[in-house]
Amino acid sequence: MRNGVDTATLFATLDAVKAAPAAARFQFRATNEWLTGTHNRSTIHGFFGVGEERAHERAFDLDADHPAVLVGGDNAPTPVEHLLHALAACLTAGLVNIAAARGVRLTEVRSTVTGDIDLNGILGPDPAVRNGFERVSVRFSVAGDAPDEVLRAIVEQSRERSAVFDMLTNHVPVDVEV
Amino acid sequence: MRNGVDTATLFATLDAVKAAPAAARFQFRATNEWLTGTHNRSTIHGFFGVGEERAHERAFDLDADHPAVLVGGDNAPTPVEHLLHALAACLTAGLVNIAAARGVRLTEVRSTVTGDIDLNGILGPDPAVRNGFERVSVRFSVAGDAPDEVLRAIVEQSRERSAVFDMLTNHVPVDVEV
Repeated sequence: MRNGVDTATLFATLDAVKAAPAAARFQFRATNEWLTGTHNRSTIHGFFGVGEERAHERAFDLDADHPAVLVGGDNAPTPVEHLLHALAACLTAGLVNIAAARGVRLTEVRSTVTGDIDLNGILGPDPAVRNGFERVSVRFSVAGDAPDEVLRAIVEQSRERSAVFDMLTNHVPVDVEV
Repeated sequence: MRNGVDTATLFATLDAVKAAPAAARFQFRATNEWLTGTHNRSTIHGFFGVGEERAHERAFDLDADHPAVLVGGDNAPTPVEHLLHALAACLTAGLVNIAAARGVRLTEVRSTVTGDIDLNGILGPDPAVRNGFERVSVRFSVAGDAPDEVLRAIVEQSRERSAVFDMLTNHVPVDVEV
């Protein structure tokens, strides 16, 4: 165990995927239900991976809402704040795994993620303003038993191998059916 | 009130943004702390909007982790499941607001969002496989006091005005600093 990561299992998983690439096909899911106004709830339980249908040990509920200043009930984070969390979580999990694989013991990983958005895109009539964040910034603070340049290289590799970073910086096909 | 939305406040907000577009500049934030292994936690509290620093009524904590099959503790949804929730929540909040503005009373909004991912991108040596979802699908079930074609048009407008949909289908600049 290093950084709370079972490195033997991590390397065995990497070897298993190399031997049988089809095992790496996963499907993740969320089912969402409207509660009232901008308040809604997703339940996350089942997923597909390593050739079969699976489930988390328990179902997780995630709520979202708008703050009062955006005509919501402020019962939960906004959808775009969930997206910032997804990015921070993906980069952090990645860099902890990479550090464990490289034999680096981490003592602290903190990050702040900010997203700047001009709501004239969503609320206003100006088609020149996009709906989403104009830019996202991530600031990491990482401490561990390795020189600064090694810790920087670990963060850089986590960026190169992050699913959420990839999806935000490259487009993903999304189809919506009713 | 319609669909739990205070429509008078919604229209007043739209008018206020039209009169003073700078009020629509917001910044959302998440601060993330590593716990152990792939388990980490974001706290979401402060944000900037309508010209000043603000905060949610309370701080929200969001955890993320990997399931056991991906060498995690399964304490929370994965980062990519948080992203699916962000998409479902954004589209749902939007369509409820749009329906309220158009005078449509909704009785039910449900959606299932799926994301297909080949983890050979993250885990494997094949540079041809991307890190993120290859595709995302959203299936909505909407009921209310309007004909099907009106409900479909409301979902379509929410897609056109969704911050998270925009970010996934168009790229966002993301900078990472250590």
